[in-house]
Amino acid sequence: MIIIGEKINGTIKSVANAIREKDKAFIQNLAVKQTEAGAHYIDVCAGTEVDIEIETLKWLIECVQEAVDTPICIDSPNPEAIKAVIPLVKKPGMINSVSEEGNKPDQVYPLVRDYGFNVICLTVDDRGIPTTVEPRLEVTRSLVKKASDYGIPQNKLYIDPLVSAVSTDNTSVLCFLQTMRQIKQEFPEVKITSGLSNVSFGMPLRKLVNRYFFCLALYEGMDSAIMDPLDKDLQSALLATQVLLGQDRLCRKFSNAYRKGLIG
Amino acid sequence: MIIIGEKINGTIKSVANAIREKDKAFIQNLAVKQTEAGAHYIDVCAGTEVDIEIETLKWLIECVQEAVDTPICIDSPNPEAIKAVIPLVKKPGMINSVSEEGNKPDQVYPLVRDYGFNVICLTVDDRGIPTTVEPRLEVTRSLVKKASDYGIPQNKLYIDPLVSAVSTDNTSVLCFLQTMRQIKQEFPEVKITSGLSNVSFGMPLRKLVNRYFFCLALYEGMDSAIMDPLDKDLQSALLATQVLLGQDRLCRKFSNAYRKGLIG
Repeated sequence: MIIIGEKINGTIKSVANAIREKDKAFIQNLAVKQTEAGAHYIDVCAGTEVDIEIETLKWLIECVQEAVDTPICIDSPNPEAIKAVIPLVKKPGMINSVSEEGNKPDQVYPLVRDYGFNVICLTVDDRGIPTTVEPRLEVTRSLVKKASDYGIPQNKLYIDPLVSAVSTDNTSVLCFLQTMRQIKQEFPEVKITSGLSNVSFGMPLRKLVNRYFFCLALYEGMDSAIMDPLDKDLQSALLATQVLLGQDRLCRKFSNAYRKGLIG
Repeated sequence: MIIIGEKINGTIKSVANAIREKDKAFIQNLAVKQTEAGAHYIDVCAGTEVDIEIETLKWLIECVQEAVDTPICIDSPNPEAIKAVIPLVKKPGMINSVSEEGNKPDQVYPLVRDYGFNVICLTVDDRGIPTTVEPRLEVTRSLVKKASDYGIPQNKLYIDPLVSAVSTDNTSVLCFLQTMRQIKQEFPEVKITSGLSNVSFGMPLRKLVNRYFFCLALYEGMDSAIMDPLDKDLQSALLATQVLLGQDRLCRKFSNAYRKGLIG
């Protein structure tokens, strides 16, 4: 399970404050804490106006790289911003994200190739997020094909099938899981990732719902999650589910995490 | 989801005390509370020495039937005890359980047929609980066949594929889920049931593990659970998973339960 730590995101109020006040210690603490909690990538998202996005991303990347060696996940909807900051990233990380919107593949994939990054591929195109399985697969096929045209191997691609809110579409999770299953059948080398919170939009007890969504996604073989690695309940869901799926021999990882107070 | 409320069980210390002291109010309170929490059957298990099992079961059944109309699930490993008390049960309930041990089918199935009960069928025979899928299926086939010979329709059968402790066998849950899936394919009319606590035997944070097991079993289509319906966390797991599986339109059941403080 490849964890992309999501906490350094300028759309979160406390992070926005830290960005405004250039509070390096606050950002670095988030990088250290997420790394200690097992994050494999530290996502950095400026969440600011476009005109200061690049400078904000640069500052965030600098902060993080001073504090930890964990690879960076550059999170921006703007390929120009990604292009501007990627040379600063010291070790191959991840780009979040490419999609079939506009000419994004032709803007993002050369960076993925040239810098040896991984990339999150959203199953969305100019028509918006599909509501059924087949159009999601079509977008996936196109994104995989274009990656291949740029010489990017499939194992660099983290497809995000984009789960929507189950409160407004009660087939959304089944659709997500089925899409994941079919992508894995068709492209055994690509990885699947997802955020864990959109699913519960509009519901009470969102975090509780997110945890069971995580469990089901793990069961269907999700490889990665964009999540808060400091969320003890999510970590509990992850480790308990790994035990149930036979992925934690003699429950050692689970028992160790329990003894350290990391779950429960 | 058919809930078999498990709380009236003489192997639980407080219930054993109530049985010894003939504390009718204690037993009846458990029956009422479980019914209010959505139990479809009230399991009664004497958990006593064999010589007083029948009299204990009779008293428990009388207590419960005075308090609630919820059908009774007669829980005994002893077909003679079931035969002795089943005439006291006012409305068709459930027998817990039959298996391929000894001549149990020939002792239990006539009662199932004559009294119009449902029956929990354990996938175990005289060789013990199988550790793989195929022998569990063989036991299931034999139990279904013998039921048919007695004129019992498949929809009266609640097969329990008997999940074992994942701490000692890390394939146990995958084996359980695969067995369930294959039974449902082969016999679409039979129902699947299971207890939710054996899976976590020998682990810390057992209740947490049980909840994610419940989620996975629901995803694979488990029809029934032998559980504590008063366990708020288990109810949360049930209702959250039903939302995720698209079984709770507009999240109404989930939201109502939240407003009543029954989950979360």
